[in-house]
Amino acid sequence: MKNKNFYAVIMAGGVGSRFWPVSTQEFPKQFHDMLGKGQSLIQRTFSRINDLVPSENILIATNEKYEDLVLDQIPKASKNQLLLEPEMRNTAPCILYAALKIYDQNPDAVILVAPSDHWIDDEAEFSRNIETSFEACSQQDILMTLGIQPNSPNTGYGYIQFETSEDEIKKVKNFTEKPNLETAEKFLASGDYLWNAGIFVWSAKSIVKAFEKSLPDMLNLFNASETYNTNKEASFIKSNYENAENISIDFGIMERASNVHVLPVDFGWNDLGTWGSLYNKLEKDASKNATVGSETIFRDAQGNMVRTQSGKRVVIQGLNDYIVVEKEDVLLICPKKDEQDIKQIVADVKDTFGSDFV
Amino acid sequence: MKNKNFYAVIMAGGVGSRFWPVSTQEFPKQFHDMLGKGQSLIQRTFSRINDLVPSENILIATNEKYEDLVLDQIPKASKNQLLLEPEMRNTAPCILYAALKIYDQNPDAVILVAPSDHWIDDEAEFSRNIETSFEACSQQDILMTLGIQPNSPNTGYGYIQFETSEDEIKKVKNFTEKPNLETAEKFLASGDYLWNAGIFVWSAKSIVKAFEKSLPDMLNLFNASETYNTNKEASFIKSNYENAENISIDFGIMERASNVHVLPVDFGWNDLGTWGSLYNKLEKDASKNATVGSETIFRDAQGNMVRTQSGKRVVIQGLNDYIVVEKEDVLLICPKKDEQDIKQIVADVKDTFGSDFV
Repeated sequence: MKNKNFYAVIMAGGVGSRFWPVSTQEFPKQFHDMLGKGQSLIQRTFSRINDLVPSENILIATNEKYEDLVLDQIPKASKNQLLLEPEMRNTAPCILYAALKIYDQNPDAVILVAPSDHWIDDEAEFSRNIETSFEACSQQDILMTLGIQPNSPNTGYGYIQFETSEDEIKKVKNFTEKPNLETAEKFLASGDYLWNAGIFVWSAKSIVKAFEKSLPDMLNLFNASETYNTNKEASFIKSNYENAENISIDFGIMERASNVHVLPVDFGWNDLGTWGSLYNKLEKDASKNATVGSETIFRDAQGNMVRTQSGKRVVIQGLNDYIVVEKEDVLLICPKKDEQDIKQIVADVKDTFGSDFV
Repeated sequence: MKNKNFYAVIMAGGVGSRFWPVSTQEFPKQFHDMLGKGQSLIQRTFSRINDLVPSENILIATNEKYEDLVLDQIPKASKNQLLLEPEMRNTAPCILYAALKIYDQNPDAVILVAPSDHWIDDEAEFSRNIETSFEACSQQDILMTLGIQPNSPNTGYGYIQFETSEDEIKKVKNFTEKPNLETAEKFLASGDYLWNAGIFVWSAKSIVKAFEKSLPDMLNLFNASETYNTNKEASFIKSNYENAENISIDFGIMERASNVHVLPVDFGWNDLGTWGSLYNKLEKDASKNATVGSETIFRDAQGNMVRTQSGKRVVIQGLNDYIVVEKEDVLLICPKKDEQDIKQIVADVKDTFGSDFV
């Protein structure tokens, strides 16, 4: 029996523009089967969480324009499990909305907050880590985050410094946004820094209390009795959401709170943040070429990442370390090393071809 | 009024495998709009010839499997204008078949034989040249070929040496198959060599006489009274065609005849023999990129040739001098300098993906 106090919020509002042309405004990354596994990332996330959390306790936060996509892809989710954001805001408003809605259902709830578009290799280990965190948060008034054991001085992630102790769950000393390479190398060498993966656990009570302390205006905005889980909820959110401050949970709550703890984890995490990180997760042939969707003949070609419409036959000759992505209306060919240019490419595409293509 | 003695045979039996993946067994090059002009190459060839030759006098020689394609693309051609080859043979059998069929219709016919898949810039000049040739062949028992003024020591073409004279039409001294570079350079410098474009003009009488002299067995095979232009023709060809010698008109007739003449011409000819020669004919942007079918953003990319399904949006970054060709089921990316490898690529594709893809 899954614990009826266990809840989760899947964060599915992003657009993932660095995965253009696959990821678009109309059909973002989390709704795609980025790794060719037969499930979209959000489907995989839902089923991973559903190992531990009853399906009716899993809420999905997304922009209102993705409502149909979510209901289509997650048949186990009913409309009342959707947190539909009428406006693009950062993570804090959406997490508060979720917390109040869940608190209204079950004041004893403990809540996992997790991105919809990450990859986790060891799902059993993930479940164990979340269960450990749920238990801790059931008993103590703490805000927890999961910290990934870093294996490189990656400058694209935030870092969490913890206080060394014998305990499995460590007290957090410090958050650092994306550091420069020198700093990241120091962090890695020190042994007491972890990557911030945006995976949080807390009780409904504790997170509401944290908002009361650190973002009281936001709590006032969203605090409404006899509204959540009634037919007043949708119109209440529609009227008030746009007035919420555009702030992240990290900056608005975590960095200001004194009761933040971290569980160091190592379950094979990949944020699939860029085509390069996706390439790293894909199976490769002897020449280090990776393909999704297509059948490809590589001739004198190495280190490429090819993703096309299903069943497309591709021949690549004399090309090394490129991203080749094709779908119905678009084809992209770009060196892997230029993956950070994709945001600029998307801007060019919008200017040149129009917003239908981004 | 077009001259009712003027006839033409458009040679449309080839497959053009160096233009894979656009050109395939099922849908060869000549049926494609290779240059994005709004007409396929054979359509353009037909209309160019039709300036001078009555449409009912234009015959089209092709493999029987392309019958529907030809009738579809050339609505002015009736079924009796099609010379359907039941087997792949070289050019001599097909030209003899055409000559006998035309002779049966009009013993005074003069005939232009021309490939279906070449490009000619100056169509008015082409018409003038053909008219000059028709007139000469109406009056004299000669075999004529059109010789292209060479502008480079191209080793991919055959060369025609002519006897210098004041006459517009020169007597041919010699044919040379694809020479090496050194020889080609000598030919170019000498001023009395022309490229053999496979464009011929002769009277029906003269070409039949030439077969009688040089390929008498073939003439015996095809010579049949009260067969051509009757309902016996199709079954006669079906039974006999496979027994014809597999030989080219150049080798079988032209190189053996003593009455061969050439008209030097300069009408902007391109055999569109490879992706590279196609690239040369296409309009290019300031970075020497050429596109057909697609709308392409080039970023730090030069000298590429991009051809896709109509309306596809393409982004190419950091790529120089490649061929990028996409159609429904296939994508090819290959350096322009490797265009001669495409025949090998086609063989690989056939082995790996099956004959449906070539």
